Amino acid sequence: MNAAAESARAVVLVSGGLDSATVLAIAREQGFACYALSIDYGQRHRAELASARRVAASQEVVRHEVFRLDLSQFGGSALTDGSLAVPDGPQEGIPITYVPARNTIFLAVALGWAEVLGARDLFIGANAVDYSGYPDCRPAFIQAFTELANLATKAGVEGEQFSVHAPLIDLSKSDIVQRGMKLGVDFGLTLSCYDPGPGDRPCGVCDACRLRARGFAGAGIQDPGLC
Amino acid sequence: MNAAAESARAVVLVSGGLDSATVLAIAREQGFACYALSIDYGQRHRAELASARRVAASQEVVRHEVFRLDLSQFGGSALTDGSLAVPDGPQEGIPITYVPARNTIFLAVALGWAEVLGARDLFIGANAVDYSGYPDCRPAFIQAFTELANLATKAGVEGEQFSVHAPLIDLSKSDIVQRGMKLGVDFGLTLSCYDPGPGDRPCGVCDACRLRARGFAGAGIQDPGLC
Repeated sequence: MNAAAESARAVVLVSGGLDSATVLAIAREQGFACYALSIDYGQRHRAELASARRVAASQEVVRHEVFRLDLSQFGGSALTDGSLAVPDGPQEGIPITYVPARNTIFLAVALGWAEVLGARDLFIGANAVDYSGYPDCRPAFIQAFTELANLATKAGVEGEQFSVHAPLIDLSKSDIVQRGMKLGVDFGLTLSCYDPGPGDRPCGVCDACRLRARGFAGAGIQDPGLC
Repeated sequence: MNAAAESARAVVLVSGGLDSATVLAIAREQGFACYALSIDYGQRHRAELASARRVAASQEVVRHEVFRLDLSQFGGSALTDGSLAVPDGPQEGIPITYVPARNTIFLAVALGWAEVLGARDLFIGANAVDYSGYPDCRPAFIQAFTELANLATKAGVEGEQFSVHAPLIDLSKSDIVQRGMKLGVDFGLTLSCYDPGPGDRPCGVCDACRLRARGFAGAGIQDPGLC
C-alpha cells in the first residue's frame, strides 16, 4: 500500500516558479499527499507550465492537473494582454503585471478540487514581501479567503475547516531560496521570468527575473536555472 | 452618445435560467450598463448557454462573454460528472447537483472581469429559499465574498468598494416569477432543467424543473418555457 495514499490530502498551486516549487516541498515535508494544480490562464509566459510539470514530477505528487481558464479573454494585465508590455525596470504602486483577481480565481478553483478530493488544505506561494504591490498576496487576503471557504462549501457547512497555507508570505526571496535548497528543491527545473525569449531563456530584466536574481545573490547561491 | 455607456457598469452572471434572467432585468432597472457573464463549466445542461445568449440579447446587454472553465475535469457533482445521475425526486441535505465551490469560482471570475471593466457591482441570482441545500447561496457567503473582493483587488486597496448584489436571495420562486414578469422578462427564452432531453426539452422531474413548476403555479402564470 502506498503510504502517501493514507496521508491527508492537500491541493498545492504550482506555477512553475521557485516560490511554488518550495511550497510544494514544504507541503510534502508536512506529510501531505500532494495534488498539484497549475492554471493555464492565457499567460504570456506559458513556458512556466512546462516547468510546473517538471516540478510536480520531480516531487512525486499524487496527481498534477493543468486547469485551463483563459483570462486573456478579459485582458487588463501585461501578463494576459499582448498589447501591454512587461516593464523592464522597477515599478511604483501596483504593477501592470498584476492580473485582476488572479489569486481569488486560482484559490477558488483549488477549493473546488479540494472539496471533490476530500482535501481540507490548500497551499499557495503568495508572498507579501517582494510582491507587496499585489493586493492578493497579503495575509488579510489569505485570511478572508479561508473564511469564505468555510462558508462556501459543503464541508465547511458540515463543520470541517479549510486551511489556506501561505508558508512564504513573510519570507524574503533569499529566505525562500534557502528554504527550498534545504528541502532539496531542484531550482534548475523552475522558471520565474514573465517574458521569456527563444528557448524559454529568462529576459533578466522583468520584476520576476530581478527578484529571483536578488534572492539567489542574497542566499549566496548560484541560480541553476540560468545555466 | 449611448446613454448606457455613461452608466455605472455591472457584471451580471447569466446562466440561462429564470433567476438570472430576472436578476439581469433588475440590474438594468437600477440603471446599470450590464455586462453579462455566462460560464461554460462542462455542465451536463450546456443547452442553458444557448438560453443565456438569448436572454442577454433580449435584454440588450452591452456585452456578453461566455467564459470556459471545465469543472468536469474534477467531477464530484451530478451536473459535471456523467457517471452521476441527476435525481428525479426531492433530496435530503446538500444535493448531489451541488457543484463544489461553483459560486466562489463564478464570482471570482466575475470579479476579475469587473476590475478590468472598472465595474464595482456584481449581480448573482443566488437564492437561499429554494436552494437552501447549496451553501454558496446563503447571505453569509455573499457577505464574505464582498469582504474578500475588497481585499483581493487593486480597486479595493485604493478604497473603492465592491458590491455583490443577490436581489433574489430571500425571494420564493413565485416571487421571482412575478418580479420578472413585472420587469418584462421573457421567460420563454429561459431553460432551468438540469438534464434536458432531445430538443432541449425539460425533463420535468429534476429539482430545477420542479421548483420552476411550483414557482409558476404559485404565481398563477403559465410557464411559456414549456410550450
